[in-house]
Amino acid sequence: MPNISRWIEEATDQVAGLPGIGRKTALRLVLHLIKKSPEEVTRFTQSIQNVKEHIKACQECHQLSDDTVCEVCKNPTRNQQLICVVQDFRDVLAIEQTGQFNGLYHVLGGLISPMDGVSPSDLNISTLLERVERKNVQEVLLALNATMEGETTSFYLYRKISPFQIKISNIARGVAVGGELEYTDEVTLGRSILNRTPYEMTLNR
Amino acid sequence: MPNISRWIEEATDQVAGLPGIGRKTALRLVLHLIKKSPEEVTRFTQSIQNVKEHIKACQECHQLSDDTVCEVCKNPTRNQQLICVVQDFRDVLAIEQTGQFNGLYHVLGGLISPMDGVSPSDLNISTLLERVERKNVQEVLLALNATMEGETTSFYLYRKISPFQIKISNIARGVAVGGELEYTDEVTLGRSILNRTPYEMTLNR
Repeated sequence: MPNISRWIEEATDQVAGLPGIGRKTALRLVLHLIKKSPEEVTRFTQSIQNVKEHIKACQECHQLSDDTVCEVCKNPTRNQQLICVVQDFRDVLAIEQTGQFNGLYHVLGGLISPMDGVSPSDLNISTLLERVERKNVQEVLLALNATMEGETTSFYLYRKISPFQIKISNIARGVAVGGELEYTDEVTLGRSILNRTPYEMTLNR
Repeated sequence: MPNISRWIEEATDQVAGLPGIGRKTALRLVLHLIKKSPEEVTRFTQSIQNVKEHIKACQECHQLSDDTVCEVCKNPTRNQQLICVVQDFRDVLAIEQTGQFNGLYHVLGGLISPMDGVSPSDLNISTLLERVERKNVQEVLLALNATMEGETTSFYLYRKISPFQIKISNIARGVAVGGELEYTDEVTLGRSILNRTPYEMTLNR
């Protein structure tokens, strides 16, 4: 960018640091913000500061929450014996959106990926096993991406949870193979929860 | 979005208010910011606050500036007798990027558009005429979009500036550099033939 304004340059650099935002788009967004009233800009930046300050990980299921225990874990009407294992918080949102799931969640915080140096110990797996035991969980529903890393992680969890002799299910392969949960339409995603299959069936394919 | 976190919801709403950013992208950006350190988030929001607080419109040419008079207008090595008229600040940046223009700018702040209720009095036209007179300007270069609104505005300015009996030019319309004739629309191609330039000029670039 030509040497015109260091303030615009700085703000553009910051916005362009967001994923999927190039410098031209960043500049467009900054110029859009400049046109807003000071109050609107403050509301914008304050909302981001607030989210950073107030959001924590739920100490039970590790999903993002306003409190030390999230709304889902706190809710007594939800099935405490059913835990849905997901990769990250966005998957929780995607599944909540379907309205088809009434259990609790467990956010792994990633998937096993030797290529990226992510091993099981980097994920929230020990707390999952601890929860399964402590809470007398009856079913663990694996809802991980239908990718190599997702399948690997599912299999790893299957082996870890099997000794508890509880039901281990997998969301139905209505989700396109190679697809990601976040971008699946809610009807398909909801169907895949209703049609969850015993993990053994996945193994036999 | 499910009722999970009001902080995330608020921040997502704010980010989704930016042009071209949908709710899914907004959520992705907010979650990205949550993962950053508090210092990084503060640097991000502060840069946006700074740009809003410190940026003003140059009192001469109306482009965005850190100061009451912009770097271009302040620069004594630039041709003070040549003014390039553009629609908005991004056009200034685009032209500066070419390194081919050494005069001053004048930012109209829009284009005449009866459909959108934009009349000449809504634009920075009186200050342009005042500058032309006061600064003894020798040439006004019209660099507006090649659209209906751009052409209308150019023609309006041409009629307003003509009485000063100075040179009024228009940026060349023609086949884009690297463009193929076959895929150029016929109006542009026709214009490029009418406005053909001596071949020596091409050679010297």
